[in-house]
Amino acid sequence: MDSTHPATADLDLGSILQALADPHRRRVIAELAADRSDPERTCHSFGLPVSKQTSTYHFKTLRASGLIRDLNYGNRKGIRLRRADIDARFPGLLDLLAAEHSRTQQRAETKP
Amino acid sequence: MDSTHPATADLDLGSILQALADPHRRRVIAELAADRSDPERTCHSFGLPVSKQTSTYHFKTLRASGLIRDLNYGNRKGIRLRRADIDARFPGLLDLLAAEHSRTQQRAETKP
Repeated sequence: MDSTHPATADLDLGSILQALADPHRRRVIAELAADRSDPERTCHSFGLPVSKQTSTYHFKTLRASGLIRDLNYGNRKGIRLRRADIDARFPGLLDLLAAEHSRTQQRAETKP
Repeated sequence: MDSTHPATADLDLGSILQALADPHRRRVIAELAADRSDPERTCHSFGLPVSKQTSTYHFKTLRASGLIRDLNYGNRKGIRLRRADIDARFPGLLDLLAAEHSRTQQRAETKP
């Protein structure tokens, strides 16, 4: 495991909760948690309403907490949820976020 | 519901995760979550290794996030976990914290 991605045994609930306390970062993880196909995504694809610099900071925070893995193919980059690692250490956490994501989506759709 | 305790429908996952990101506050909630008898406790009984002022701040943060309820009997005060409210809005969250609490306790007990 490279130094920027914590090992599964080193995942810290405090760091993870701190990462998830921010609404933009939580939206990213909730969206990933809700998609069981665990696709590879680009940071851009989430359309966070923040500057590129802030977006970079958010994704760096998510990676450092161990919630996502960076994928670097040289000519392109991506991220992926570390679902198996998170489920192994903190069972129920991703389900909780996915459920909250569905709730928020439903609320948005039923707004007049 | 008085103004210092958010109503169940107003519980906000961001505020709750922010409250739980601090290790002292998380320890309080994990300890409460692990005790299914949901006893009334005093703030003092958790023995947080912080000043009285800091302890007051932590318990105020927990109350404002909706995780605990303050009980004031005039001659004595207490707190209690809002288990039913939290379970209703964020099922699995308290179980997650209780599990992490057991894990931490076991690790502390098996240390040489």
